Amino acid sequence: MTTYEEVINLALRRSLFYQNCEVYKGPAGFYNYGPYGTAIKRKIVSVWRKHLVQKEGFLEIDGSTVMPEDVFKASGHLDNFNDPVTRCKKCGTAYRADNLLNEVTKKEYKEAESEAILTKSLRDNKIKCPDCKGELSEVIKENILVKVGVKSTQKNVYLRPETCQTIFTDFSRMMKTMRLKLPQGISQHGKSYRNEISPRQTILRTIEFEQMETEIFFDPKNINEIEKWNEIKDYKLCVQLDGKKQVEQISCADLVKKKIVSGKLIAYYLARTQQLYEQYGFDLKKMRFRELDNKERAFYAKEGWDFEVLTSIGWLELIANNYRTDYDLNGHMKGSKEDMQYVYPDGKKVLPHVWEISIGTNRTFYAILENSLKEVNGKTVLSLPTKIAPLQIAIIPLLKNNKELIKKSKEIVELLNHFDITYDDAGSVGKRYARMDEIGVPYCITVDHQTLEDETVTLRDRDTTEQKRIKITEIVKTIRELI
Amino acid sequence: MTTYEEVINLALRRSLFYQNCEVYKGPAGFYNYGPYGTAIKRKIVSVWRKHLVQKEGFLEIDGSTVMPEDVFKASGHLDNFNDPVTRCKKCGTAYRADNLLNEVTKKEYKEAESEAILTKSLRDNKIKCPDCKGELSEVIKENILVKVGVKSTQKNVYLRPETCQTIFTDFSRMMKTMRLKLPQGISQHGKSYRNEISPRQTILRTIEFEQMETEIFFDPKNINEIEKWNEIKDYKLCVQLDGKKQVEQISCADLVKKKIVSGKLIAYYLARTQQLYEQYGFDLKKMRFRELDNKERAFYAKEGWDFEVLTSIGWLELIANNYRTDYDLNGHMKGSKEDMQYVYPDGKKVLPHVWEISIGTNRTFYAILENSLKEVNGKTVLSLPTKIAPLQIAIIPLLKNNKELIKKSKEIVELLNHFDITYDDAGSVGKRYARMDEIGVPYCITVDHQTLEDETVTLRDRDTTEQKRIKITEIVKTIRELI
Repeated sequence: MTTYEEVINLALRRSLFYQNCEVYKGPAGFYNYGPYGTAIKRKIVSVWRKHLVQKEGFLEIDGSTVMPEDVFKASGHLDNFNDPVTRCKKCGTAYRADNLLNEVTKKEYKEAESEAILTKSLRDNKIKCPDCKGELSEVIKENILVKVGVKSTQKNVYLRPETCQTIFTDFSRMMKTMRLKLPQGISQHGKSYRNEISPRQTILRTIEFEQMETEIFFDPKNINEIEKWNEIKDYKLCVQLDGKKQVEQISCADLVKKKIVSGKLIAYYLARTQQLYEQYGFDLKKMRFRELDNKERAFYAKEGWDFEVLTSIGWLELIANNYRTDYDLNGHMKGSKEDMQYVYPDGKKVLPHVWEISIGTNRTFYAILENSLKEVNGKTVLSLPTKIAPLQIAIIPLLKNNKELIKKSKEIVELLNHFDITYDDAGSVGKRYARMDEIGVPYCITVDHQTLEDETVTLRDRDTTEQKRIKITEIVKTIRELI
Repeated sequence: MTTYEEVINLALRRSLFYQNCEVYKGPAGFYNYGPYGTAIKRKIVSVWRKHLVQKEGFLEIDGSTVMPEDVFKASGHLDNFNDPVTRCKKCGTAYRADNLLNEVTKKEYKEAESEAILTKSLRDNKIKCPDCKGELSEVIKENILVKVGVKSTQKNVYLRPETCQTIFTDFSRMMKTMRLKLPQGISQHGKSYRNEISPRQTILRTIEFEQMETEIFFDPKNINEIEKWNEIKDYKLCVQLDGKKQVEQISCADLVKKKIVSGKLIAYYLARTQQLYEQYGFDLKKMRFRELDNKERAFYAKEGWDFEVLTSIGWLELIANNYRTDYDLNGHMKGSKEDMQYVYPDGKKVLPHVWEISIGTNRTFYAILENSLKEVNGKTVLSLPTKIAPLQIAIIPLLKNNKELIKKSKEIVELLNHFDITYDDAGSVGKRYARMDEIGVPYCITVDHQTLEDETVTLRDRDTTEQKRIKITEIVKTIRELI
């Protein structure tokens, strides 16, 4: 099984991702993506856009990352968006109390435990500062919004902790200008920021991160009315119910019948979400929707399912699926005095409820890497689904110093330049194949002496390493069929 | 001619863009993009990626927006990235001194004028606070980096004022892991932030904005060696030379021969940049590269050309093209102690020079809107090039209450669902065409009674408003040819 360390090694070796401002030993919690990483991440977003946003008719917006305090007063973040923090009384270093306890005791403490419980556990376990062995302070909850110094306003402004707040604040404008009909999803892809006290595990817990979020607005009376229900009613979801140890496969219809979910609409979007991750190459055996209990759920959620995939470091949460009810629209309606109610043609009004699909892009990226990384005959192969491979084809002249082969190869580059291609003539052919396998390029086209004689090339498949000869005149057609 | 106000009206009416946190009267200088605006902006970025980044073999990275103070010490931003500010001594409001003078005197003051000159001009022109008529302070230069409160570090950290700093700090990693050969472009698309004292003109001068930047690293000895020179040597650039009033068309070869630019490499990338804007639909008559004089050039630039397009509010700068020499790599090499020199196979070292193409995405978006917006028979038509239209096709049943027409229309929606499509059955057909014209949808497919008889539909062209009947079996092929 691929380990976390193997993924990180590959990431650093090929610059898929790496510490921000590495040469300055920049602050923890910020990561950059190199050329291949940027391409893979961009394609992950494209698949989300195509298979979820556009297929389901969601509207996609793109808002500012900076928002004023009013928004977070209304959303509850100013009061409730806290982490439990303890500080060393000697050296001043801050720690997340729950993390520190988890690491030292190997038991599972949650951030939602009360300050008193966490403080008592620190004392009971005689935990000191890991750095200097100094005494630790009582646990307090600290707000994790990131404040920004903007000169043009007197108000406090913050970097958004989740992209969805824009969706809520803009909802009334969308109603007025976009001819909405309920149910209607509104999506946003972009950066969010949380003031993590102790960022860790590279791109898995950072201060700056990327989200792909959707808020589906619906009339709670119609939670069981969903147009394409028949398409998924027999589709089985991998769920782990609250209090259960094992993951079960339960059909959408049964989830509704057994009242495990609040209605068909929720089962439907859980299904679409799981299907998206099938597109990303995950096996059903490695996925679960974990039902959240009262303590674990976000402060605004009535029902919540964490979508997790099984990795070498355990089940990893990639998506928060939350039934946010009318919590947000209600808060913003009060906070802004703007009417956020949906008006039916007959004049009836309703404050919509919200089902949220909040996807962590960076974690999804990590999970896809780990899921795709294989060791084949001692060599590293990244078996990415073709639609998210950083490049589709590498064009490789057999010999790097043969002018005719290079000329012919460049002709093929021109022929294929509407695909995502690269040209590589450095080092032995074997090394070049290995380089391409490692970053997940699904196909290599090799130009050799026979090419000059009969206008054929070899087409190599990353996963089988099989090569077959095809005519140059048929390359475009062949590649198109494969991709 | 389309005016600024007409563009803004359309933008607000159809939510192409609008004030961030509108319902809370959010701070000035932040804008959101609605669904159509988001789609157009995304496609502008795609065209840049395809026609400049990928075509020229640039590497694209994606870095954090937050960077530590060390970076800006080395880059010179901490010392030099200032705006001239005057504050009202009575009400405290801050103003950009150069802007205030420009507005009041209608003469042209530049931000680079000295504090003394600007203060004297304020006094000479007896300018008071526009808000409260209070006395204005002496002009001082204030740094416009945006500070961020990050708890996990003791260092000062800032939101980046330009995406390119990531490209410089990551350059040595790219050399080590990406097998670079000079010349090599590295690109980045993303958000940047500048602490504008008085943000203004909607998306034209904001605090948070989007850039598409490229830094081309090259050996200054080889500034005249560029592989594809022949492709552009006779291509004419629209240039306005320093001190001249008119724009001239001069071939790349002549620009080099007359030593107007420092070398072929620069003429080449100016040409590729102008060609990109031809893709965006701009006429050569509306473009110019304006040569910058000593005062106007950024503090790091040896040669600079602002790429501007002619709009209703005058020439608008969309791109800063700068010859940054080795200023940045030199600064970061000293600041970080990391060797940033490129090593040739024979062991010779060179600190690369840099040619920068720094594109403002939001201004480009505005300029494209204004350039595409037309009034045809009293109706608004947004004649966007098809490749940046928010949607490619609208499918419209002639009557909104006819079940058979709607069923047939939905079949066509399924048939075309790999294109960017929308379905619209609300209101009269004329109104629906008008709605689609206004947001730039190039084609409408209308399903009418004849469709039910002979399996044909009408295909309407946005710009000519001509309609022709085509068979349903030929729609996909026809659309593919048109797009």
